[in-house]
Amino acid sequence: MMGVSVGKAVEGRKGEHAVRIGELSRRTGVSVPTIKFYVREGLLPAGELTSPNQASYGETHVQRLRLIRALLDVGGMSVAAIRDVIVAVEDPERSMHKVLGVTANRLVPRYEREPDTVIEEARKSVAELVAARGWHAYPENPAGEALAAALAALDDVGHGGFVEILDAYADAAEKVARADMDYVAHHVAREALVESAVVGTVLGDAIFAALRRLAHVDASNRVFGGPADRE
Amino acid sequence: MMGVSVGKAVEGRKGEHAVRIGELSRRTGVSVPTIKFYVREGLLPAGELTSPNQASYGETHVQRLRLIRALLDVGGMSVAAIRDVIVAVEDPERSMHKVLGVTANRLVPRYEREPDTVIEEARKSVAELVAARGWHAYPENPAGEALAAALAALDDVGHGGFVEILDAYADAAEKVARADMDYVAHHVAREALVESAVVGTVLGDAIFAALRRLAHVDASNRVFGGPADRE
Repeated sequence: MMGVSVGKAVEGRKGEHAVRIGELSRRTGVSVPTIKFYVREGLLPAGELTSPNQASYGETHVQRLRLIRALLDVGGMSVAAIRDVIVAVEDPERSMHKVLGVTANRLVPRYEREPDTVIEEARKSVAELVAARGWHAYPENPAGEALAAALAALDDVGHGGFVEILDAYADAAEKVARADMDYVAHHVAREALVESAVVGTVLGDAIFAALRRLAHVDASNRVFGGPADRE
Repeated sequence: MMGVSVGKAVEGRKGEHAVRIGELSRRTGVSVPTIKFYVREGLLPAGELTSPNQASYGETHVQRLRLIRALLDVGGMSVAAIRDVIVAVEDPERSMHKVLGVTANRLVPRYEREPDTVIEEARKSVAELVAARGWHAYPENPAGEALAAALAALDDVGHGGFVEILDAYADAAEKVARADMDYVAHHVAREALVESAVVGTVLGDAIFAALRRLAHVDASNRVFGGPADRE
Protein backbone atom coordinates (compact mmCIF):
# COMPACT_ATOMS: atom_id res chain seq x y z
CA MET A 1 0.00 0.00 0.00
CA MET A 2 3.06 2.26 -0.19
CA GLY A 3 2.44 4.50 -3.18
CA VAL A 4 5.32 6.86 -2.38
CA SER A 5 8.44 6.25 -4.48
CA VAL A 6 11.61 5.85 -2.46
CA GLY A 7 14.19 8.38 -3.67
CA LYS A 8 17.68 9.20 -2.39
CA ALA A 9 18.10 5.58 -1.36
CA VAL A 10 21.49 4.47 -0.10
CA GLU A 11 22.56 0.92 0.59
CA GLY A 12 22.83 0.15 4.34
CA ARG A 13 25.61 -1.99 5.80
CA LYS A 14 23.56 -5.16 5.99
CA GLY A 15 22.33 -4.75 2.43
CA GLU A 16 19.12 -3.20 3.83
CA HIS A 17 17.45 -0.59 1.64
CA ALA A 18 18.44 2.49 3.66
CA VAL A 19 17.22 6.08 3.32
CA ARG A 20 18.09 9.51 4.73
CA ILE A 21 15.98 11.20 7.39
CA GLY A 22 14.04 13.37 4.89
CA GLU A 23 12.90 10.30 3.00
CA LEU A 24 12.05 8.48 6.26
CA SER A 25 9.87 11.49 7.10
CA ARG A 26 8.12 11.38 3.71
CA ARG A 27 7.53 7.62 3.91
CA THR A 28 5.99 7.74 7.38
CA GLY A 29 4.37 11.20 7.47
CA VAL A 30 6.32 11.99 10.66
CA SER A 31 8.19 15.33 10.54
CA VAL A 32 12.02 15.42 10.77
CA PRO A 33 12.06 17.30 14.13
CA THR A 34 9.60 14.74 15.55
CA ILE A 35 11.78 11.84 14.35
CA LYS A 36 14.79 13.48 16.06
CA PHE A 37 12.70 13.94 19.22
CA TYR A 38 11.77 10.23 19.26
CA VAL A 39 15.47 9.30 18.91
CA ARG A 40 16.41 11.62 21.82
CA GLU A 41 13.58 10.20 23.95
CA GLY A 42 14.69 6.61 23.31
CA LEU A 43 11.61 5.54 21.32
CA LEU A 44 13.49 5.09 18.05
CA PRO A 45 17.05 3.76 17.56
CA ALA A 46 19.48 6.31 16.06
CA GLY A 47 20.22 6.00 12.34
CA GLU A 48 23.49 4.47 11.16
CA LEU A 49 26.13 7.17 10.61
CA THR A 50 27.26 7.20 6.97
CA SER A 51 29.31 10.40 7.43
CA PRO A 52 29.95 12.64 10.48
CA ASN A 53 26.69 14.54 9.93
CA GLN A 54 24.57 12.12 7.91
CA ALA A 55 22.69 9.06 9.14
CA SER A 56 20.75 6.44 7.23
CA TYR A 57 17.57 4.68 8.28
CA GLY A 58 16.13 1.30 7.32
CA GLU A 59 12.89 -0.69 7.34
CA THR A 60 13.18 -1.16 11.14
CA HIS A 61 12.83 2.60 11.58
CA VAL A 62 9.81 2.77 9.28
CA GLN A 63 8.09 0.00 11.23
CA ARG A 64 8.98 1.48 14.61
CA LEU A 65 7.63 4.91 13.59
CA ARG A 66 4.34 3.32 12.52
CA LEU A 67 4.15 1.48 15.85
CA ILE A 68 4.81 4.73 17.77
CA ARG A 69 2.15 6.64 15.80
CA ALA A 70 -0.42 3.86 16.27
CA LEU A 71 0.09 3.80 20.06
CA LEU A 72 0.25 7.60 20.27
CA ASP A 73 -2.49 8.75 17.89
CA VAL A 74 -5.02 5.94 18.15
CA GLY A 75 -4.10 4.36 21.48
CA GLY A 76 -3.83 7.77 23.16
CA MET A 77 -0.66 6.73 25.03
CA SER A 78 1.92 9.29 26.17
CA VAL A 79 5.50 9.38 24.83
CA ALA A 80 6.78 8.30 28.27
CA ALA A 81 4.34 5.38 28.37
CA ILE A 82 5.35 4.25 24.87
CA ARG A 83 9.04 4.38 25.84
CA ASP A 84 8.39 2.10 28.84
CA VAL A 85 6.48 -0.35 26.63
CA ILE A 86 9.21 -0.34 23.94
CA VAL A 87 11.93 -0.94 26.56
CA ALA A 88 9.90 -3.92 27.82
CA VAL A 89 9.34 -5.26 24.27
CA GLU A 90 13.10 -5.05 23.56
CA ASP A 91 14.14 -6.65 26.85
CA PRO A 92 15.57 -10.10 25.95
CA GLU A 93 14.50 -11.35 29.41
CA ARG A 94 10.93 -10.30 28.70
CA SER A 95 8.03 -12.66 29.12
CA MET A 96 4.74 -12.04 27.33
CA HIS A 97 3.01 -11.53 30.68
CA LYS A 98 5.61 -8.99 31.77
CA VAL A 99 5.36 -6.90 28.60
CA LEU A 100 1.56 -6.94 28.68
CA GLY A 101 1.69 -6.05 32.37
CA VAL A 102 3.81 -2.97 31.58
CA THR A 103 1.44 -2.04 28.74
CA ALA A 104 -1.64 -2.36 30.92
CA ASN A 105 -0.05 -0.39 33.76
CA ARG A 106 0.98 2.43 31.42
CA LEU A 107 -2.40 2.63 29.71
CA VAL A 108 -4.32 3.52 32.84
CA PRO A 109 -2.91 5.59 35.69
CA ARG A 110 -2.46 3.45 38.79
CA TYR A 111 -5.39 4.18 41.06
CA GLU A 112 -4.31 4.41 44.70
CA ARG A 113 -7.39 4.25 46.87
CA GLU A 114 -7.72 4.11 50.63
CA PRO A 115 -9.14 0.72 51.67
CA ASP A 116 -12.87 1.11 52.37
CA THR A 117 -16.02 -1.00 52.20
CA VAL A 118 -16.75 0.12 48.61
CA ILE A 119 -13.49 -1.25 47.15
CA GLU A 120 -13.75 -4.38 49.34
CA GLU A 121 -17.23 -5.08 47.94
CA ALA A 122 -15.96 -4.46 44.41
CA ARG A 123 -13.05 -6.90 44.90
CA LYS A 124 -15.52 -9.49 46.17
CA SER A 125 -17.64 -9.03 43.01
CA VAL A 126 -14.54 -9.51 40.84
CA ALA A 127 -13.49 -12.68 42.70
CA GLU A 128 -17.03 -14.07 42.36
CA LEU A 129 -17.10 -13.28 38.65
CA VAL A 130 -13.72 -14.94 38.00
CA ALA A 131 -14.82 -18.03 39.97
CA ALA A 132 -18.23 -18.24 38.27
CA ARG A 133 -16.62 -17.95 34.83
CA GLY A 134 -13.98 -20.55 35.67
CA TRP A 135 -11.32 -18.15 34.42
CA HIS A 136 -7.74 -19.31 35.02
CA ALA A 137 -6.65 -15.98 36.47
CA TYR A 138 -6.03 -14.52 39.89
CA PRO A 139 -8.71 -11.89 40.61
CA GLU A 140 -6.03 -9.77 42.32
CA ASN A 141 -3.89 -9.47 39.16
CA PRO A 142 -3.61 -5.95 37.65
CA ALA A 143 -6.64 -6.42 35.36
CA GLY A 144 -8.74 -7.66 38.28
CA GLU A 145 -7.63 -4.70 40.38
CA ALA A 146 -8.46 -2.30 37.52
CA LEU A 147 -11.91 -3.87 37.25
CA ALA A 148 -12.50 -3.53 41.01
CA ALA A 149 -11.36 0.12 40.91
CA ALA A 150 -13.79 0.88 38.06
CA LEU A 151 -16.70 -0.84 39.83
CA ALA A 152 -15.89 1.05 43.05
CA ALA A 153 -15.78 4.36 41.15
CA LEU A 154 -19.20 3.58 39.65
CA ASP A 155 -20.52 2.81 43.14
CA ASP A 156 -19.07 6.14 44.38
CA VAL A 157 -21.10 8.06 41.81
CA GLY A 158 -24.33 6.20 42.56
CA HIS A 159 -24.11 3.36 40.03
CA GLY A 160 -23.53 0.38 42.33
CA GLY A 161 -26.29 -1.40 40.36
CA PHE A 162 -23.90 -1.76 37.44
CA VAL A 163 -22.70 -5.13 38.79
CA GLU A 164 -26.04 -6.54 37.57
CA ILE A 165 -24.92 -6.19 33.94
CA LEU A 166 -21.32 -7.28 34.56
CA ASP A 167 -22.10 -10.75 33.22
CA ALA A 168 -23.16 -9.32 29.86
CA TYR A 169 -19.84 -7.42 29.72
CA ALA A 170 -17.93 -10.60 30.66
CA ASP A 171 -19.72 -12.61 27.92
CA ALA A 172 -18.71 -9.96 25.40
CA ALA A 173 -15.12 -9.83 26.68
CA GLU A 174 -14.79 -13.63 26.36
CA LYS A 175 -16.07 -13.45 22.79
CA VAL A 176 -13.56 -10.73 21.89
CA ALA A 177 -10.66 -12.50 23.64
CA ARG A 178 -11.45 -15.70 21.70
CA ALA A 179 -11.45 -13.72 18.43
CA ASP A 180 -8.10 -12.14 19.45
CA MET A 181 -6.58 -15.57 20.09
CA ASP A 182 -7.88 -16.90 16.75
CA TYR A 183 -6.35 -13.91 15.01
CA VAL A 184 -2.99 -14.46 16.72
CA ALA A 185 -3.02 -18.18 15.85
CA HIS A 186 -3.64 -17.48 12.15
CA HIS A 187 -1.82 -14.22 11.47
CA VAL A 188 1.05 -13.69 13.90
CA ALA A 189 4.53 -15.21 13.60
CA ARG A 190 6.08 -16.39 16.85
CA GLU A 191 8.84 -13.73 16.87
CA ALA A 192 6.23 -10.98 16.37
CA LEU A 193 4.04 -12.25 19.22
CA VAL A 194 5.00 -9.76 21.92
CA GLU A 195 4.81 -6.64 19.75
CA SER A 196 1.53 -7.84 18.23
CA ALA A 197 0.09 -8.44 21.68
CA VAL A 198 0.90 -4.83 22.67
CA VAL A 199 -0.62 -3.46 19.45
CA GLY A 200 -3.66 -5.72 19.77
CA THR A 201 -4.23 -4.81 23.40
CA VAL A 202 -4.07 -1.06 22.79
CA LEU A 203 -5.81 -0.83 19.40
CA GLY A 204 -8.31 -3.58 20.25
CA ASP A 205 -9.54 -1.41 23.15
CA ALA A 206 -9.88 1.57 20.79
CA ILE A 207 -11.76 -0.53 18.24
CA PHE A 208 -14.16 -1.97 20.80
CA ALA A 209 -14.81 1.48 22.30
CA ALA A 210 -15.61 2.90 18.84
CA LEU A 211 -17.94 -0.01 18.05
CA ARG A 212 -19.69 0.36 21.41
CA ARG A 213 -20.27 4.07 20.60
CA LEU A 214 -21.68 3.17 17.17
CA ALA A 215 -23.99 0.61 18.79
CA HIS A 216 -25.08 3.30 21.31
CA VAL A 217 -25.83 5.72 18.46
CA ASP A 218 -27.91 2.98 16.82
CA ALA A 219 -29.80 2.21 20.05
CA SER A 220 -30.27 5.91 20.83
CA ASN A 221 -31.64 6.59 17.33
CA ARG A 222 -34.07 3.68 17.64
CA VAL A 223 -35.30 4.88 21.06
CA PHE A 224 -35.30 8.67 20.55
CA GLY A 225 -36.02 8.51 16.81
CA GLY A 226 -34.30 10.05 13.80
CA PRO A 227 -30.62 9.80 12.94
CA ALA A 228 -29.32 12.44 15.34
CA ASP A 229 -25.61 11.64 15.16
CA ARG A 230 -24.99 14.44 12.67
CA GLU A 231 -26.00 17.02 15.29
CA MET B 1 -21.65 3.27 52.50
CA MET B 2 -20.33 6.47 54.13
CA GLY B 3 -18.84 5.37 57.43
CA VAL B 4 -17.19 8.74 58.15
CA SER B 5 -19.09 10.90 60.63
CA VAL B 6 -19.79 14.41 59.42
CA GLY B 7 -18.39 16.88 61.94
CA LYS B 8 -18.20 20.69 61.88
CA ALA B 9 -21.45 20.76 59.94
CA VAL B 10 -23.05 24.12 59.25
CA GLU B 11 -26.48 24.69 57.78
CA GLY B 12 -26.35 25.96 54.15
CA ARG B 13 -28.72 28.61 52.82
CA LYS B 14 -31.10 26.18 51.15
CA GLY B 15 -31.26 24.02 54.27
CA GLU B 16 -28.63 21.72 52.68
CA HIS B 17 -26.32 19.95 55.09
CA ALA B 18 -23.19 22.04 54.43
CA VAL B 19 -19.61 21.44 55.55
CA ARG B 20 -16.30 23.30 55.55
CA ILE B 21 -13.50 22.46 53.11
CA GLY B 22 -11.57 20.27 55.60
CA GLU B 23 -14.62 18.06 56.11
CA LEU B 24 -15.28 17.95 52.34
CA SER B 25 -11.70 16.72 51.97
CA ARG B 26 -12.17 14.02 54.63
CA ARG B 27 -15.47 12.84 53.14
CA THR B 28 -14.10 12.50 49.60
CA GLY B 29 -10.44 11.64 50.19
CA VAL B 30 -9.42 14.60 47.99
CA SER B 31 -6.83 16.92 49.59
CA VAL B 32 -7.70 20.57 50.35
CA PRO B 33 -5.12 21.99 47.86
CA THR B 34 -6.52 19.68 45.16
CA ILE B 35 -10.10 20.81 45.89
CA LYS B 36 -8.93 24.45 45.56
CA PHE B 37 -7.17 23.57 42.30
CA TYR B 38 -10.39 22.04 40.88
CA VAL B 39 -12.31 25.21 41.82
CA ARG B 40 -9.68 27.41 40.10
CA GLU B 41 -9.74 25.17 37.00
CA GLY B 42 -13.54 25.37 36.75
CA LEU B 43 -14.22 21.68 37.49
CA LEU B 44 -15.94 22.34 40.81
CA PRO B 45 -18.24 25.27 41.72
CA ALA B 46 -16.86 27.52 44.48
CA GLY B 47 -18.25 27.02 47.98
CA GLU B 48 -20.82 29.43 49.40
CA LEU B 49 -19.12 32.21 51.38
CA THR B 50 -20.30 32.15 55.01
CA SER B 51 -17.74 34.78 56.08
CA PRO B 52 -15.06 36.72 54.13
CA ASN B 53 -12.58 33.85 54.42
CA GLN B 54 -14.76 30.81 55.01
CA ALA B 55 -16.82 28.88 52.48
CA SER B 56 -19.23 26.00 52.94
CA TYR B 57 -19.78 23.04 50.65
CA GLY B 58 -22.80 20.79 50.13
CA GLU B 59 -23.80 17.42 48.70
CA THR B 60 -23.38 18.77 45.14
CA HIS B 61 -19.67 19.27 45.83
CA VAL B 62 -19.28 15.76 47.24
CA GLN B 63 -20.94 14.26 44.17
CA ARG B 64 -18.97 16.41 41.75
CA LEU B 65 -15.66 15.46 43.42
CA ARG B 66 -16.55 11.77 43.10
CA LEU B 67 -17.39 12.28 39.42
CA ILE B 68 -14.06 14.08 38.84
CA ARG B 69 -12.07 11.33 40.58
CA ALA B 70 -13.88 8.58 38.65
CA LEU B 71 -13.14 10.22 35.27
CA LEU B 72 -9.57 11.12 36.30
CA ASP B 73 -8.37 8.03 38.17
CA VAL B 74 -10.27 5.25 36.44
CA GLY B 75 -11.17 6.86 33.12
CA GLY B 76 -7.64 8.24 32.71
CA MET B 77 -8.99 11.59 31.43
CA SER B 78 -6.99 14.81 31.83
CA VAL B 79 -8.17 17.75 33.96
CA ALA B 80 -8.67 19.83 30.77
CA ALA B 81 -10.75 17.06 29.18
CA ILE B 82 -12.92 16.70 32.29
CA ARG B 83 -13.53 20.47 32.36
CA ASP B 84 -14.75 20.38 28.73
CA VAL B 85 -17.09 17.48 29.53
CA ILE B 86 -18.45 19.20 32.67
CA VAL B 87 -19.07 22.43 30.75
CA ALA B 88 -21.02 20.39 28.18
CA VAL B 89 -22.99 18.53 30.89
CA GLU B 90 -23.95 21.85 32.52
CA ASP B 91 -24.92 23.56 29.25
CA PRO B 92 -28.75 24.00 29.36
CA GLU B 93 -28.79 23.83 25.54
CA ARG B 94 -27.03 20.47 25.64
CA SER B 95 -28.38 17.48 23.81
CA MET B 96 -27.37 13.96 24.83
CA HIS B 97 -25.62 13.49 21.49
CA LYS B 98 -23.66 16.72 21.92
CA VAL B 99 -22.43 15.86 25.42
CA LEU B 100 -21.45 12.34 24.39
CA GLY B 101 -19.74 13.76 21.32
CA VAL B 102 -17.62 16.06 23.52
CA THR B 103 -16.83 13.13 25.83
CA ALA B 104 -15.78 10.87 22.96
CA ASN B 105 -13.66 13.60 21.37
CA ARG B 106 -11.88 14.34 24.64
CA LEU B 107 -11.22 10.69 25.44
CA VAL B 108 -9.11 10.04 22.37
CA PRO B 109 -6.85 12.63 20.76
CA ARG B 110 -8.20 13.61 17.36
CA TYR B 111 -6.17 11.74 14.78
CA GLU B 112 -5.34 13.93 11.77
CA ARG B 113 -4.15 11.70 8.99
CA GLU B 114 -3.27 12.54 5.41
CA PRO B 115 -5.80 10.92 3.06
CA ASP B 116 -4.29 7.73 1.62
CA THR B 117 -5.46 4.36 0.34
CA VAL B 118 -5.11 2.77 3.80
CA ILE B 119 -7.60 5.10 5.51
CA GLU B 120 -9.92 4.98 2.46
CA GLU B 121 -9.99 1.16 2.66
CA ALA B 122 -10.63 1.36 6.42
CA ARG B 123 -13.54 3.79 5.92
CA LYS B 124 -15.00 1.41 3.34
CA SER B 125 -14.78 -1.47 5.86
CA VAL B 126 -16.58 0.66 8.47
CA ALA B 127 -19.35 1.65 6.03
CA GLU B 128 -19.81 -2.01 5.03
CA LEU B 129 -19.97 -3.08 8.66
CA VAL B 130 -22.56 -0.44 9.58
CA ALA B 131 -24.67 -1.40 6.54
CA ALA B 132 -24.39 -5.16 7.19
CA ARG B 133 -25.40 -4.67 10.83
CA GLY B 134 -28.30 -2.41 9.90
CA TRP B 135 -27.08 0.12 12.45
CA HIS B 136 -28.95 3.43 12.43
CA ALA B 137 -25.77 5.50 12.40
CA TYR B 138 -23.73 7.40 9.86
CA PRO B 139 -20.40 5.61 9.36
CA GLU B 140 -18.70 9.02 9.12
CA ASN B 141 -19.77 10.07 12.64
CA PRO B 142 -16.92 10.51 15.21
CA ALA B 143 -17.14 6.89 16.41
CA GLY B 144 -17.02 5.61 12.82
CA GLU B 145 -14.02 7.83 12.09
CA ALA B 146 -12.28 6.61 15.26
CA LEU B 147 -12.91 3.02 14.16
CA ALA B 148 -11.51 3.70 10.68
CA ALA B 149 -8.42 5.38 12.19
CA ALA B 150 -7.78 2.37 14.45
CA LEU B 151 -8.19 -0.10 11.56
CA ALA B 152 -5.84 2.00 9.40
CA ALA B 153 -3.25 2.11 12.20
CA LEU B 154 -3.45 -1.69 12.49
CA ASP B 155 -2.97 -1.98 8.73
CA ASP B 156 0.06 0.36 8.98
CA VAL B 157 1.77 -1.98 11.45
CA GLY B 158 1.06 -5.09 9.37
CA HIS B 159 -2.27 -6.20 10.86
CA GLY B 160 -4.64 -5.48 7.97
CA GLY B 161 -6.05 -8.99 8.53
CA PHE B 162 -7.73 -7.73 11.70
CA VAL B 163 -10.87 -6.80 9.71
CA GLU B 164 -11.60 -10.55 9.56
CA ILE B 165 -12.47 -10.57 13.28
CA LEU B 166 -14.27 -7.22 13.26
CA ASP B 167 -17.64 -8.99 13.21
CA ALA B 168 -16.85 -10.77 16.48
CA TYR B 169 -16.00 -7.38 18.01
CA ALA B 170 -19.22 -5.87 16.65
CA ASP B 171 -21.31 -8.76 18.08
CA ALA B 172 -19.72 -8.13 21.46
CA ALA B 173 -20.23 -4.35 21.22
CA GLU B 174 -23.94 -4.83 20.41
CA LYS B 175 -24.31 -7.10 23.42
CA VAL B 176 -22.66 -4.55 25.72
CA ALA B 177 -24.65 -1.62 24.28
CA ARG B 178 -27.90 -3.55 24.87
CA ALA B 179 -26.86 -4.20 28.48
CA ASP B 180 -26.01 -0.48 28.86
CA MET B 181 -29.46 0.53 27.58
CA ASP B 182 -31.17 -1.97 29.92
CA TYR B 183 -29.22 -0.54 32.83
CA VAL B 184 -30.20 3.02 31.91
CA ALA B 185 -33.87 2.05 31.54
CA HIS B 186 -33.97 0.45 35.01
CA HIS B 187 -31.57 2.52 37.09
CA VAL B 188 -31.23 6.05 35.73
CA ALA B 189 -33.64 8.92 36.39
CA ARG B 190 -34.34 11.17 33.41
CA GLU B 191 -32.58 14.23 34.91
CA ALA B 192 -29.46 12.14 35.58
CA LEU B 193 -29.36 10.75 32.04
CA VAL B 194 -26.63 12.95 30.57
CA GLU B 195 -24.20 12.65 33.49
CA SER B 196 -24.84 8.90 33.70
CA ALA B 197 -24.17 8.52 29.99
CA VAL B 198 -20.77 10.23 30.41
CA VAL B 199 -19.88 8.07 33.40
CA GLY B 200 -21.11 4.92 31.67
CA THR B 201 -19.23 5.68 28.48
CA VAL B 202 -15.92 6.33 30.25
CA LEU B 203 -16.08 3.69 32.99
CA GLY B 204 -17.77 1.13 30.74
CA ASP B 205 -14.71 1.27 28.45
CA ALA B 206 -12.42 0.75 31.47
CA ILE B 207 -14.52 -2.18 32.68
CA PHE B 208 -14.60 -3.87 29.31
CA ALA B 209 -10.84 -3.38 28.84
CA ALA B 210 -10.15 -4.94 32.26
CA LEU B 211 -12.45 -7.90 31.50
CA ARG B 212 -10.82 -8.41 28.10
CA ARG B 213 -7.41 -8.54 29.87
CA LEU B 214 -8.73 -11.09 32.38
CA ALA B 215 -10.10 -13.21 29.52
CA HIS B 216 -6.69 -12.95 27.78
CA VAL B 217 -4.93 -14.10 30.96
CA ASP B 218 -7.34 -17.04 31.10
CA ALA B 219 -6.76 -17.94 27.43
CA SER B 220 -3.00 -17.47 27.76
CA ASN B 221 -2.87 -19.70 30.84
CA ARG B 222 -4.87 -22.40 29.04
CA VAL B 223 -2.58 -22.27 25.98
CA PHE B 224 0.83 -21.74 27.63
CA GLY B 225 -0.06 -23.61 30.83
CA GLY B 226 0.20 -22.66 34.49
CA PRO B 227 -1.22 -19.54 36.11
CA ALA B 228 1.51 -17.10 35.07
CA ASP B 229 -0.26 -13.85 35.91
CA ARG B 230 1.55 -13.55 39.24
CA GLU B 231 4.88 -13.19 37.40
